[in-house]
Amino acid sequence: MSHFTPTDLTRVRRVAQRANYDQATVHAIVDHAWICHIAFSLDGQSHCIPTAHWRVGEAIHIHGSNGSRLLRALATGIPACVCITHLDGLVLARSAFNHSMNYRSAMVYGRFAPLTAAERSASLDAFMDKLEPGRRAQVRMPDANELAATTVLALPIIEAVAKIRQGPPEDDEADLSLPVWAGVWPLETRFGEPITHHASAALA
Amino acid sequence: MSHFTPTDLTRVRRVAQRANYDQATVHAIVDHAWICHIAFSLDGQSHCIPTAHWRVGEAIHIHGSNGSRLLRALATGIPACVCITHLDGLVLARSAFNHSMNYRSAMVYGRFAPLTAAERSASLDAFMDKLEPGRRAQVRMPDANELAATTVLALPIIEAVAKIRQGPPEDDEADLSLPVWAGVWPLETRFGEPITHHASAALA
Repeated sequence: MSHFTPTDLTRVRRVAQRANYDQATVHAIVDHAWICHIAFSLDGQSHCIPTAHWRVGEAIHIHGSNGSRLLRALATGIPACVCITHLDGLVLARSAFNHSMNYRSAMVYGRFAPLTAAERSASLDAFMDKLEPGRRAQVRMPDANELAATTVLALPIIEAVAKIRQGPPEDDEADLSLPVWAGVWPLETRFGEPITHHASAALA
Repeated sequence: MSHFTPTDLTRVRRVAQRANYDQATVHAIVDHAWICHIAFSLDGQSHCIPTAHWRVGEAIHIHGSNGSRLLRALATGIPACVCITHLDGLVLARSAFNHSMNYRSAMVYGRFAPLTAAERSASLDAFMDKLEPGRRAQVRMPDANELAATTVLALPIIEAVAKIRQGPPEDDEADLSLPVWAGVWPLETRFGEPITHHASAALA
């Protein structure tokens, strides 16, 4: 089992028992999400942008049009911070103060770098495999123009930390006898019924 | 119906038809989420931090311990960007290039300011009402020490924009005859069965 080394940026100071530097734990949180939020600063202004991501080995990959401001800014190698958060439940305690949330979050600090044309194709294949294994064999794969119009950036998952809270509320002992329901409302994200798109509708 | 005025920060340049400056639309996206991601920069380093939020009128509120680095930094009024994203589905097209995602995101730029002690209590009441209307009448409300230990910050929702994509894949016409399933896999977040916490378990 491999662990990340805490740094000034990733050392969790508050409620430090929620910190987790296990590589497999961070990777699982990254892999379980379809989108991340990326913080970066341009001309003194901070931005927080959501975008799709996938993991290739020990890096987070993102993509978009060559014209995207997000990608053009990040491609210059400015400091970035990627955060992925799964909200697993609301934690209802017997006192207002002890209410909490169950979650798994991963935070990765670093700088993105663009993939070369040769690397892009394999990375986009990995993205398609994440969406649906086997789908690559069915869809029309990118042609040269589409590939050339797409930027893919990679961020090494090295300066990284997970923060996790799970379990019941933690009430003060004096509050345990209060006549109020306490516990967890789990939150689940799942797929609903697929909505088929018929070619005839597109041509209509 | 009230609309936000696009600024240099909130004017959506790419796929501009996805932009929405309607106040009610932005508020609905904010209200539908339990957590937001906040980007800010300290000493040249960008941070992206997830935290619980709620809306009070025309402001986003967040809270935490007085000792929180996040809150202490934001309380100084540095530029911040809050993003809230709901991922509503994966959009599977007939070509790899036209795959997409359905989502509703809201982005708010601005500076947080701390609430006064007198304002804090009403704000935290609003947070509890968001969690469960009526719950305030049941739980033990914060005592003076708990209130004094809590920082609440407010960010005006003025420089704001929503970005929304909904609907089926948009394939190139030449791809419509390809023998591959296309459509949307909707993603839903819902509550599972509540998990009751028994006081006896806490005392055991």
